[in-house]
Amino acid sequence: MQRQDYEWAQAEALTLIDQAGIVISPHEARQIQVTDFGLGDLRSTGIESLVYVNTRLVCAKELILLSHQTCPEHLHPPPGKEETFRCRWGEVYLYVPGEPASQPKATPPRGREHTYTVWREVVLEPGQQYTVPQGTRHWFQAGDQGAVVSEFSSTAYDDLDTWTDKDISL
Amino acid sequence: MQRQDYEWAQAEALTLIDQAGIVISPHEARQIQVTDFGLGDLRSTGIESLVYVNTRLVCAKELILLSHQTCPEHLHPPPGKEETFRCRWGEVYLYVPGEPASQPKATPPRGREHTYTVWREVVLEPGQQYTVPQGTRHWFQAGDQGAVVSEFSSTAYDDLDTWTDKDISL
Repeated sequence: MQRQDYEWAQAEALTLIDQAGIVISPHEARQIQVTDFGLGDLRSTGIESLVYVNTRLVCAKELILLSHQTCPEHLHPPPGKEETFRCRWGEVYLYVPGEPASQPKATPPRGREHTYTVWREVVLEPGQQYTVPQGTRHWFQAGDQGAVVSEFSSTAYDDLDTWTDKDISL
Repeated sequence: MQRQDYEWAQAEALTLIDQAGIVISPHEARQIQVTDFGLGDLRSTGIESLVYVNTRLVCAKELILLSHQTCPEHLHPPPGKEETFRCRWGEVYLYVPGEPASQPKATPPRGREHTYTVWREVVLEPGQQYTVPQGTRHWFQAGDQGAVVSEFSSTAYDDLDTWTDKDISL
């Protein structure tokens, strides 16, 4: 990813965090991570995150999704982490295994539709949350305005995550 | 605790949550727990909390402290939970073992001073956080305006907590 794209996404994420009324320190603002998952299309497939804590016991972070940005389908291999996503601002469409939505609100990133396989839809607005059990395939996309989502989970071992899209590299 | 005190504290907590810009559902508003730790002096020793999630892996909640309200000294017995306290709004004074503060900002609840034994001071303002390791004695008090504090921790087994003040009952 080019540095200017990284810095653009960081600045956009900061704006959303501010709109969500979440206070972070100047140091934390510089720690916001941006990833395009190696697909080179950050506005479409990407996520911004600020990790508050990640110890051998617990992990908490803010996830920031820009308008219609997608965190692609993945799972955390067994035993895997359990994740609770709590929407703080904006709107997020979360997909997990189960009865597919007949008219899903999200549209997968163009050209990568084949890598989205679970379609049970959970719509999260501010104050709503959903807990993804261990080892469960999931993906999510923000609505028009983007979204800020708190993630509470067991320890994150990002290197072990399994992505449906085999072109993804972290 | 009398029902009117419980409802008063719930309403005060809701006001602080709102001031902190945190969105909760109407259902959650009714789930805010109030405790006076059995000491019958809620304004002085007490805490309000909203548990978002508490599974066998992870726990996340909002803690709300009214003006100068104190969560009394305790620890979570071995292995005990690890807790990260992140101040979202207001100001909180956290005390842990170590070099005692020469001029602590908090004043222990009157008549119970003997039950406060750790005095290393950590001041948390919005955007600041501190992780209390497992099995570490700690207590905290809000500043003038009260405080809203996110707690990220491993599983909470509140029944097992050890309180320095032996008059405390949950």
